[in-house]
Amino acid sequence: MKRRVFLKMKSVEEARTQFLERFGAPKAGGTEVVPTPEALFRVTAEAVYARISSPNYHSAAMDGVAVDAKITYGTTERNPMILKLGKDAEWINTGHLLPSGADAVIMVEKLHQIDEETLEISAPAHPWQNVRKVGEDIVATELLLPQNHLIRAYDLGALIGGGVFELLVRARPRVIIIPTGNELVDFKALARPEDLREGQILEYNSIVLSGLVRESGAVPEVYPLVEDRLDAIKNTLLRAADSGADLIIINAGSSAGSKDYTYHAINELGEVFTHGVSMMPGKPTILGALRETPVVGNPGYPVSATLSFEQFVRPLLYRLRGLSEPPAPTIKVFPTRNIPSRPGIEEFVRVNIGAVSDKVVATPLPRSAGSITTLTRAEGIIRIPLMSEGLSQDDEVEAELLVDRSEIYKTVVLIGSHDITLDVLADEIRRTGRGFRISSGNVGSLGGLMALRKGVAHAAGSHLLDTETGEYNYSYIERYLKGVQVALYQLVWREQGLIVKKGNPLDVNGVEDLQRPDVRFVNRQAGSGTRILLDYKLAQIGLDGSAIKGYDHEEYTHMAVAVDVKSGAADAGLGIYAAAKALNLDFVPVTQERYDLVIPHGFLERENVQMLLDIARSGQYRKRVSRLGGYEASESGKLLRVIG
Amino acid sequence: MKRRVFLKMKSVEEARTQFLERFGAPKAGGTEVVPTPEALFRVTAEAVYARISSPNYHSAAMDGVAVDAKITYGTTERNPMILKLGKDAEWINTGHLLPSGADAVIMVEKLHQIDEETLEISAPAHPWQNVRKVGEDIVATELLLPQNHLIRAYDLGALIGGGVFELLVRARPRVIIIPTGNELVDFKALARPEDLREGQILEYNSIVLSGLVRESGAVPEVYPLVEDRLDAIKNTLLRAADSGADLIIINAGSSAGSKDYTYHAINELGEVFTHGVSMMPGKPTILGALRETPVVGNPGYPVSATLSFEQFVRPLLYRLRGLSEPPAPTIKVFPTRNIPSRPGIEEFVRVNIGAVSDKVVATPLPRSAGSITTLTRAEGIIRIPLMSEGLSQDDEVEAELLVDRSEIYKTVVLIGSHDITLDVLADEIRRTGRGFRISSGNVGSLGGLMALRKGVAHAAGSHLLDTETGEYNYSYIERYLKGVQVALYQLVWREQGLIVKKGNPLDVNGVEDLQRPDVRFVNRQAGSGTRILLDYKLAQIGLDGSAIKGYDHEEYTHMAVAVDVKSGAADAGLGIYAAAKALNLDFVPVTQERYDLVIPHGFLERENVQMLLDIARSGQYRKRVSRLGGYEASESGKLLRVIG
Repeated sequence: MKRRVFLKMKSVEEARTQFLERFGAPKAGGTEVVPTPEALFRVTAEAVYARISSPNYHSAAMDGVAVDAKITYGTTERNPMILKLGKDAEWINTGHLLPSGADAVIMVEKLHQIDEETLEISAPAHPWQNVRKVGEDIVATELLLPQNHLIRAYDLGALIGGGVFELLVRARPRVIIIPTGNELVDFKALARPEDLREGQILEYNSIVLSGLVRESGAVPEVYPLVEDRLDAIKNTLLRAADSGADLIIINAGSSAGSKDYTYHAINELGEVFTHGVSMMPGKPTILGALRETPVVGNPGYPVSATLSFEQFVRPLLYRLRGLSEPPAPTIKVFPTRNIPSRPGIEEFVRVNIGAVSDKVVATPLPRSAGSITTLTRAEGIIRIPLMSEGLSQDDEVEAELLVDRSEIYKTVVLIGSHDITLDVLADEIRRTGRGFRISSGNVGSLGGLMALRKGVAHAAGSHLLDTETGEYNYSYIERYLKGVQVALYQLVWREQGLIVKKGNPLDVNGVEDLQRPDVRFVNRQAGSGTRILLDYKLAQIGLDGSAIKGYDHEEYTHMAVAVDVKSGAADAGLGIYAAAKALNLDFVPVTQERYDLVIPHGFLERENVQMLLDIARSGQYRKRVSRLGGYEASESGKLLRVIG
Repeated sequence: MKRRVFLKMKSVEEARTQFLERFGAPKAGGTEVVPTPEALFRVTAEAVYARISSPNYHSAAMDGVAVDAKITYGTTERNPMILKLGKDAEWINTGHLLPSGADAVIMVEKLHQIDEETLEISAPAHPWQNVRKVGEDIVATELLLPQNHLIRAYDLGALIGGGVFELLVRARPRVIIIPTGNELVDFKALARPEDLREGQILEYNSIVLSGLVRESGAVPEVYPLVEDRLDAIKNTLLRAADSGADLIIINAGSSAGSKDYTYHAINELGEVFTHGVSMMPGKPTILGALRETPVVGNPGYPVSATLSFEQFVRPLLYRLRGLSEPPAPTIKVFPTRNIPSRPGIEEFVRVNIGAVSDKVVATPLPRSAGSITTLTRAEGIIRIPLMSEGLSQDDEVEAELLVDRSEIYKTVVLIGSHDITLDVLADEIRRTGRGFRISSGNVGSLGGLMALRKGVAHAAGSHLLDTETGEYNYSYIERYLKGVQVALYQLVWREQGLIVKKGNPLDVNGVEDLQRPDVRFVNRQAGSGTRILLDYKLAQIGLDGSAIKGYDHEEYTHMAVAVDVKSGAADAGLGIYAAAKALNLDFVPVTQERYDLVIPHGFLERENVQMLLDIARSGQYRKRVSRLGGYEASESGKLLRVIG
């Protein structure tokens, strides 16, 4: 099969409008009757009217006695009246039936009891005082709920109260999800995750899409994996259409590559309205139909599949339910750096969001559409408009929130050097159950200090060695954070060394071996504390970086370095012991170093920053860190110095 | 049993804090392992780490050829290089495994194919270009999700991708709900709602509470109705505590009346921390414990039960799940009138909210705690602080939203005279499925004009008869809306007459019969068009209101008048035919009148108001209205006049 180009690309707006106009109405007859207690979160399919009134009898609204008001007329304090119980008045409790002949209740506080049978009152009763009349809440025949109404808990009360014990609601839309792809593996086919072979990818888009379908109030059904063969895909699509689904999602094969059969399958069996939407991620989206069933071909990268779902499938599912999709909650943010973008494409940038200084700031996550963790780690998404060339860090823009707005204000933004114990901090701060969270960005130690200087982080992790004094961080802070008062807290001491393959097959025994032609090195990025350490160690033995193979091969985290060694992309890299241990690699110690937290003074009183320090000082944190190996955390959270 | 006074009343804040401090943490061991695809909306009970990396092999990030980068070094446009397929390069598709020896992908757009076996390139490849390296998304052993994390759809993807096929989550809290009350009837015990007898109330609080429990991510179990007897209540509480529930809700009997056993039952079996909270509705709330199980005694009125749940039970359920309850979304509103309140009690006022003119305005609904429809009809709740004497209509305040914020801007605020066809409008506007809604308030025709004058409504329903000209509305608008340009649209012609009991047993044949001493009349409130009509008809025959028994007995709607006649509270009332027909009453025609919609000119271009007029002109609306009887709607939505 030949490659094909996309149909003329449409904007998100244009593609969605066209799709919803064609399919975006509840199916005639797509309804069912459910008992009222089961109607929570369902949608009314027709107006619901009360069958009886509530209350359905005149009842006391107070504890007291029921009387016929007119017999009390003329009563005053000077001219009190005697009521005989059983004749003129009857005891009554709130909610109870007014006896026949009575039309008012005198509350107990206004009664003077003379004996078991006699009461005195000093004011007249007015007709219907302290009485809940029939229909005070609901009158038979009145409209209880209009059609297309999403039923909430208290709506159930109004329904039962109005005598509606069952009602007609919209059937939940049924969505069939078809995963395709030869390289994909169903996780259920593996005994253990470690059995996954090279060249295989765990299929999880169908699980994410099922979750999104459920979140949209619809019912997902996932078909077994289909091979990348045109006939297999066509047969499966036909089966799905025959099953009476309200919508079919096929994932993926939606691009224009030689193995992408989805377009051809839909086009040969039905029609394709849209192939290619000017959005990123999500461009290779297909919108089409098989007979009268809408079909969406979602791209294969997980972020693309998710965003494409949210733009096209979610609004459709809401419409099928008779609802309109509520807009995503948003928050105003300042980007922490410029975000360039290509005009002609609407870009969806995942961002970490935090409230630092008096601004809410957003730091872009990697744009890779293949990285699901850019969604799970994000607090929001910034949409860069179709014709924009990007955003400037001085422009306030709107971000769509992926977490509750309140969490933004409880998030500690921690930017700087990478360390594995930050994961432990991030987990321990959740133990409180009070909504605090840590969002961390790995930009190296110097990058962290710069982030503090710009006011876009609450704290920075740093391990910058002053090669003249042998001290960590002080001189760098004085130099790069001039004028900013900060407090320096120790987090951990940790072992740095060369991470090498299990068994150290190349027999790398120290930094001096890195110049050997058979050793492929993997470096950390400039500005990272580990890079500075390496360069210092090289200078000590008079070695230049250019003499090292792979010196230009940079990674941003200790774990990425370890992975390169593990996967054979490199033979050695400088990093922390815990990273080597985590991936079962060998480790050649080079030095011990201190890793600190730098926190501007102005943030120290904040509840979230206080919580961060409390966690650092907790026994639970220290215990978990020492179990990682290569760490010494007995003084974590100790104030080292106030600078500036 | 004697009445007892409340324990010292606590503020909401104080009572909640104390309750949560005692019980607000996840139960140790309250966890379960679930397969990842079933973990949506569950909460992690421990940190979740990746077991494998994703991707777990180096793969092509583009379609093209895989090469060993170093063989391409030195290639330029002037000095292109020939690659032999199968020897120097191999075709590769996005996502596929990099062959061994290769460390870069040259994308297809950069290749010049000479023949089946030969390619030419004009630039060198860099190591790892266009390659997704192992662990680019997820590195084995890294933290995927912290503990106490609410799992969203894409989190499921990160879990499966990281090789986590099942995980430990918090068990959903189990909540036992015990309904009590002799007057209560389980709806399942009735064959038809009309079988409900006088003195009986349909029990629905347990259904509302179950819904609220579900909304909070917990699992409700409702026990059968329990009699108002101390021993029965105690036995049921013990059974609930023995069943291992996480929380027991008993509803009601929580007040201090003689039949209120809940306090005594909890106090005798366990302990009561709080009896009486300074909130309204919701004051008679009990917070206590049986052994280690928290028990909440919720008040019996449905609004009280709901609000008490939201203040005490919902936050507890979130805490038991390891989460903190997100604050309710709010909106800034201006009350449309002063709202007095008693200092010393925090009041929860249900309000209708709409965006009129440039302000968002809130109109209080009736404060009755017995009226569940004050919740179902409300768009929000204003909390009047403990020590406040109330709100002034000029003070901007926050309202907690009960609907999505976007709906506020799609709501048509219609205040004025009551008419049954407004329900039909309210239902038909929902047919569009586009989120538009009508919020209507019944304050009479004159009240509606006043609301327009104050800028707190988009439209007013009015049928004010000018007794001199015989015309409707024009002269009133000129007088009361001086300076406001409005458009007057006809809605319907309708029949007004005397609503009387079926068979007209008192033989009421016209307004003149209302002076008879055996006829008890029920009137409409001053300022309503119907009241003006009555007074006009009385003046025509020289009758004075004071001569009519029940002239002071006022209701606010036609249906309330009809209900009074139906229930025997009155013998006759002036109202529309449709109200009489709805309750199967007899009707003595008095006149035909026109009912109009008055809309300020400035609102005519708004989408929601346009939609209102479109609906009024639709065949569907006219058809439904004529089926009600007593209406003539063939010219509904016709512009009658522009005034001012």
